[in-house]
Amino acid sequence: MNTKKIVARNYRGTRDWLGSEVYLRQKVINTLREVFEEFGFEPLETPEIELQEVLLGKYGPEGDELSYYFKKGDDWLGLRYDHTVPLARVVAQHEKELIFPYKRYAIGPVFRADKPQAGRYRRFIQCDFDIVGVAEPIADAEVVALTYTALRRLGFDKFEIQLNDRRVLNGIAKASGADTKELTLTFLRSWDKLEKVNREQISRELKEKGASPELISRFFKVTDQLLNLEKENIIEELRQLFPDQPEVAQGLAVLEKMLDYIEDFGVPSQFYRVNPCLARGLDYYTGPIFETVIKEAGIGSITGGGRYDNLIAALGGPSLPATGSSFGLERIISVMQTLGITKPQKTLTQVFVAIFDPDSPTSVKKAIQIASALRQEGIKTELSMEKGSIGRQLRIADRRGIPVAVFAGPKEVKKGTVIVKDLATPFTGEKKNIWANQWEIPEEDLLKKVKELLD
Amino acid sequence: MNTKKIVARNYRGTRDWLGSEVYLRQKVINTLREVFEEFGFEPLETPEIELQEVLLGKYGPEGDELSYYFKKGDDWLGLRYDHTVPLARVVAQHEKELIFPYKRYAIGPVFRADKPQAGRYRRFIQCDFDIVGVAEPIADAEVVALTYTALRRLGFDKFEIQLNDRRVLNGIAKASGADTKELTLTFLRSWDKLEKVNREQISRELKEKGASPELISRFFKVTDQLLNLEKENIIEELRQLFPDQPEVAQGLAVLEKMLDYIEDFGVPSQFYRVNPCLARGLDYYTGPIFETVIKEAGIGSITGGGRYDNLIAALGGPSLPATGSSFGLERIISVMQTLGITKPQKTLTQVFVAIFDPDSPTSVKKAIQIASALRQEGIKTELSMEKGSIGRQLRIADRRGIPVAVFAGPKEVKKGTVIVKDLATPFTGEKKNIWANQWEIPEEDLLKKVKELLD
Repeated sequence: MNTKKIVARNYRGTRDWLGSEVYLRQKVINTLREVFEEFGFEPLETPEIELQEVLLGKYGPEGDELSYYFKKGDDWLGLRYDHTVPLARVVAQHEKELIFPYKRYAIGPVFRADKPQAGRYRRFIQCDFDIVGVAEPIADAEVVALTYTALRRLGFDKFEIQLNDRRVLNGIAKASGADTKELTLTFLRSWDKLEKVNREQISRELKEKGASPELISRFFKVTDQLLNLEKENIIEELRQLFPDQPEVAQGLAVLEKMLDYIEDFGVPSQFYRVNPCLARGLDYYTGPIFETVIKEAGIGSITGGGRYDNLIAALGGPSLPATGSSFGLERIISVMQTLGITKPQKTLTQVFVAIFDPDSPTSVKKAIQIASALRQEGIKTELSMEKGSIGRQLRIADRRGIPVAVFAGPKEVKKGTVIVKDLATPFTGEKKNIWANQWEIPEEDLLKKVKELLD
Repeated sequence: MNTKKIVARNYRGTRDWLGSEVYLRQKVINTLREVFEEFGFEPLETPEIELQEVLLGKYGPEGDELSYYFKKGDDWLGLRYDHTVPLARVVAQHEKELIFPYKRYAIGPVFRADKPQAGRYRRFIQCDFDIVGVAEPIADAEVVALTYTALRRLGFDKFEIQLNDRRVLNGIAKASGADTKELTLTFLRSWDKLEKVNREQISRELKEKGASPELISRFFKVTDQLLNLEKENIIEELRQLFPDQPEVAQGLAVLEKMLDYIEDFGVPSQFYRVNPCLARGLDYYTGPIFETVIKEAGIGSITGGGRYDNLIAALGGPSLPATGSSFGLERIISVMQTLGITKPQKTLTQVFVAIFDPDSPTSVKKAIQIASALRQEGIKTELSMEKGSIGRQLRIADRRGIPVAVFAGPKEVKKGTVIVKDLATPFTGEKKNIWANQWEIPEEDLLKKVKELLD
């Protein structure tokens, strides 16, 4: 064993999640899992390691740059960058076992060697759900409805799911005079970041890509028209603004159906709207796109996705339409904390069983028996293993945030009683009095008393 | 995007876990998590990627050989090989935040470039729990008690937790004449594999390591004595057999206390026994060791662990005693399936809402509304998205194993009724009749009827 002393540290851009942080992560994951399953999605678990040939070139040069690739033995390998390419591989590889439409969810870590920043990690948990094999807008509407249900279940009461369609965007770019693929993309990207950068910068970028002053002024004229549309009648207004673009018409027809279905799914209208400036980064989207914004949170989107009808075939799979979206676990939790939706919970442990005298075998045995009896009733119980005095043990329980402590000294053992202590109720005065708030009760009443204190 | 067609495949030694397999994995993980928390252990999540300097040399040359190491940018990295070295790093790194004794559990993938075999993967899930900071046997006894509780909760009713102590083994080896470190290790390894290989082979190996014929015959004499010990009185018998070995005496005193505590924890005596031949592979154990064997399963151990008082300091952490054990998820599930403890469940989805006429907007909207109403009641509901006939849709529901289907045609919509269908009850005759077992009921009675069928 190599026993050279090293400074213990994480790889930059990754971190450890300790006790109470994991409770919160698990709570969010369980809620998402619950909603995914309520909507009939089934789980899929793929390995973090994929063959390099499966990943390479799927995310463009930037994605390859940010990917972890390595060789072991004769195999060229990589760590997954998202759950979408593994999904495409699974669909290709297990096509005969799967029953289509295939609705699956995937929750697990993905890896990107991005520049670490506050809240941006190189290893983070993505929670994806996708519907493979359905081309109709009902699937996209269900993706939006699930997003709404999950966010509400998590406790969010103010958010906006923004909807758009790539074809609408492409058509508007064309109608605005973008006549090359590069200019179209630049228009889309400019609309997408309107809220983040100022117009001068956008103007400069358009110029760099070869846009004439006339084209730039046309771009901003259209942009202002888009920004001034009324939410209530937006589909109709867009139709009137761009009457001659078949792509716009096609995308709007789909958005219109989606809006109709989303209403049937029971999503209240204040939680979603068409935003004709929404573009989303990834090139592979082909139809509806969506992302969730919480203005108060001062952070980008907390969910995002869209339709990608060509991706599975492009990744070597069968030609199947697909749509889906993704929740970023770390981002969701960060917003929940910012908005005060969740309160930190120090521990899940409910009862601390102290050992009156750690040097007395009778005392140790009694404590073991009490702890075992509580655990058998499903009470989360920590058995003290600190060799110090009872006071020292109780202070540990208190520091851990455990609400109830139990112990029995020789006097109590003789009488068949136990001491139950309320550590959760605050005391008056400067310092918490560790000796207050305790009751001696018959041992057979222990469970009743503990439940009463926990309620 | 790289669109070169490739054969979709996994990295050898890894695999995908689809729907019903993940349900089972989740069920086992949830049960373990529940028991860990009932025993007051808190969760710890560490990244799969560690700096290479944290991992390198910690598992001996064989471990390094089996580890995935790679470079990204300026960083030398590796994938974790187990949860123990990350635990040691966390204890060193977060010593000031943690309250000791630190009882943590960790559930997640570990990676070993081992030779893939049936049931042995290069990426598999380990579920570890450890107590850091307690030197007393009460901690080892609690590890055994937790193991018992978890296996019972999972449905196992016949297993044996075998206990031993490294010091007992070392002392017996010495008493048997093993006078070098190498011979001692060879003796330990030979005892450990007594059940797997024949005596001739062991004899040959001992000879290769330099044991004389007399020493070999003494080894087997002692071995036969160990194998003939009575379970009931084993501590006393071992004391009498090896009266002059202080290490044996020390180890036996600890085992005796453990046995006493294990009884107090309420573990019935048929579920554990001292096995003086148990050695366990890893070199870092310093005291009690334990593993769980199920003879009927024809597989090795399903849990294993022990005390490792020097490891955390050796790994660069503070000098803290520690003990713990590990459940191998894939192995546990494989044994559960072999023993018939668990039945495969095709889907968790409870209701399939079919669309009477996918081309009629009213029909689609009705189905969406029915599905949403059921989901709001927590019923796991798949909304059909297949464009085919109602018969085709119902056959999909049936293939998926969904027990109940619901739909409403224009006639029913007019009357305010729905059709509910029992797909779970088998029919007589060769082929399942997809049109049998259905009832037309008022829409307001839907939830009641569905619940009745699901019970």
